[in-house]
Amino acid sequence: MLVLRKPYLLYLGDAVLKSDCKTAFGLRDWCRESVLGEWSHAAARVTLDLPRLAPAEAAAQGAGSIIVGVAPTGGVLPEHWQDDLEAALEAGLDVVSGLHTRLTSFPRLVRAAERRGVRLVDVRHMNPPFPVATGRKRSGRRVLTVGTDCALGKKYTALALARELGRRGVAATFRATGQTGIMIAGSGIAMDALVADFLAGAAEALSPDAPPDHWDVIEGQGSIFHPAYAGVTLGLLHGSQPDAIVLCHDPDRTTIEEYPDYPIPPLAAAIEDYLHLGRLTNRAIRCVGLSINSSALDATAWAAYRARVEAELGLPVCDPLRTGVAALADRLLAP
Amino acid sequence: MLVLRKPYLLYLGDAVLKSDCKTAFGLRDWCRESVLGEWSHAAARVTLDLPRLAPAEAAAQGAGSIIVGVAPTGGVLPEHWQDDLEAALEAGLDVVSGLHTRLTSFPRLVRAAERRGVRLVDVRHMNPPFPVATGRKRSGRRVLTVGTDCALGKKYTALALARELGRRGVAATFRATGQTGIMIAGSGIAMDALVADFLAGAAEALSPDAPPDHWDVIEGQGSIFHPAYAGVTLGLLHGSQPDAIVLCHDPDRTTIEEYPDYPIPPLAAAIEDYLHLGRLTNRAIRCVGLSINSSALDATAWAAYRARVEAELGLPVCDPLRTGVAALADRLLAP
Repeated sequence: MLVLRKPYLLYLGDAVLKSDCKTAFGLRDWCRESVLGEWSHAAARVTLDLPRLAPAEAAAQGAGSIIVGVAPTGGVLPEHWQDDLEAALEAGLDVVSGLHTRLTSFPRLVRAAERRGVRLVDVRHMNPPFPVATGRKRSGRRVLTVGTDCALGKKYTALALARELGRRGVAATFRATGQTGIMIAGSGIAMDALVADFLAGAAEALSPDAPPDHWDVIEGQGSIFHPAYAGVTLGLLHGSQPDAIVLCHDPDRTTIEEYPDYPIPPLAAAIEDYLHLGRLTNRAIRCVGLSINSSALDATAWAAYRARVEAELGLPVCDPLRTGVAALADRLLAP
Repeated sequence: MLVLRKPYLLYLGDAVLKSDCKTAFGLRDWCRESVLGEWSHAAARVTLDLPRLAPAEAAAQGAGSIIVGVAPTGGVLPEHWQDDLEAALEAGLDVVSGLHTRLTSFPRLVRAAERRGVRLVDVRHMNPPFPVATGRKRSGRRVLTVGTDCALGKKYTALALARELGRRGVAATFRATGQTGIMIAGSGIAMDALVADFLAGAAEALSPDAPPDHWDVIEGQGSIFHPAYAGVTLGLLHGSQPDAIVLCHDPDRTTIEEYPDYPIPPLAAAIEDYLHLGRLTNRAIRCVGLSINSSALDATAWAAYRARVEAELGLPVCDPLRTGVAALADRLLAP
């Protein structure tokens, strides 16, 4: 499994829009203890309100990696960004990127990394080989966040739930399956970049045998209702063998994002489909609640929605940003 | 999509066991018109009863490729096999292999191929990049073979069905998704070797828009009941958008092969699960029958089994080797 060198320096290039810096904000919010500071160009308008450190200063303070926390337009790294990343390599930092464009496609970065004996880490492209899944039941407990669609809070919910369990003194580990999650956790497996035959095998490796009361809180990917990504979702579901799922949903979406011909099913049907498929590798799988991205609802609409869905499904309904996830943890830990 | 140069010379090394030469026999039986002959070492005990041709002779007769039709012990190509393959490259043939071991890992073969401007084709490892699936409904018709497990006749059934449709004058194309199928068809996509995010997208590319009455007969992969490979199966199912499925099954198996903790579900439940999942991308999906690998049943047991399952499910039940697949074609073409 890919392991990153913490702590981090976060790099913002010359970002003007906060929305281009989701990775950097996510890291600041979810692993603040692993972030020493930020670095950017003079032209940048975005700041994380963290200490400003040049790569050499960060290295002197013990930084292990500089993270490209900004998405460049068109996926190409501008020359002056490469200047900064080369300086970071010269200072002894690994450079870590979740972009589609590979760091290793830039010869000057490759040469600088070789010269200094540090790494260019393309999180999307760094999976080692994994074995085929065995289907063997593992010790320890697992909860997986699943979704009615992509990009509606599966990572956020898993992080919030792992943090909530930790707060209660429950042994819990967040298991990352996507690029930002991997940067936050410092390790993980980029499921979408795996060779298809090894999807479930990689998911098995991600949450290995553990003590009986330990919870792995696994970041979900995609959706079984997504016409492009359901295969990834199913491989992760089967290999994770979850004891519990949390269904993530955005009530503002009626169809899969960017696939207007693909309606999102009713919540009860979505839960039943996930449980039915999950039973293949864990017959005791259950749903412990819903995590709702309710940003499109005002306070009144949210209260009504929550009450209605809780009554309909008999399950706790949270929005991590509004209510926290205590109710999900309660249900998860209930005997 | 990978396209091979036909016709073929089939290479058997110094095989002693027929069971090590499944690829060669499959090619002989399913694309005899594309096979010029066979070649092997003096020590070989297996023959395909085809004309014996040295690589240079085959090249003189117009051969495009030599196919490694034998699985070497431990996956390593013995030196004297490499001699033969190098001679084939020198004669101007592409060398095609479905082995895990890459032809490109043997420097002398790489050098010989470069020298002569011919190809080393590792069928398992040659997929070009594919786009993410669009979910857009395509023109033409599609039937996909699916299974209760791996390795129980999905390729064979698809080939037999494509041949039966052709015999009736129906425009039909066999679409290969595994290594042997690709060699038979001369083109295709090795689904198990794809990057996971592009599974459904590759399946869409495999069976593109076609005339309204044209049938793509798509070779299935894996099984949604397989704890390791279900993700591949689901991506192929979604991207294929099949109008029809044929369920392949071996009544001698009660659990997934090599996974004794994973029972094979009842046939009616298996069909319903495939149809339920398939409806995501084609609401009109239907099952047109079962293809049974009945090699473990004697004639009496097979007749009884067939009658019972046909009555139970109200669907035609075939064994391509015993009954042919006319009944499946009838149901497929019924208005």
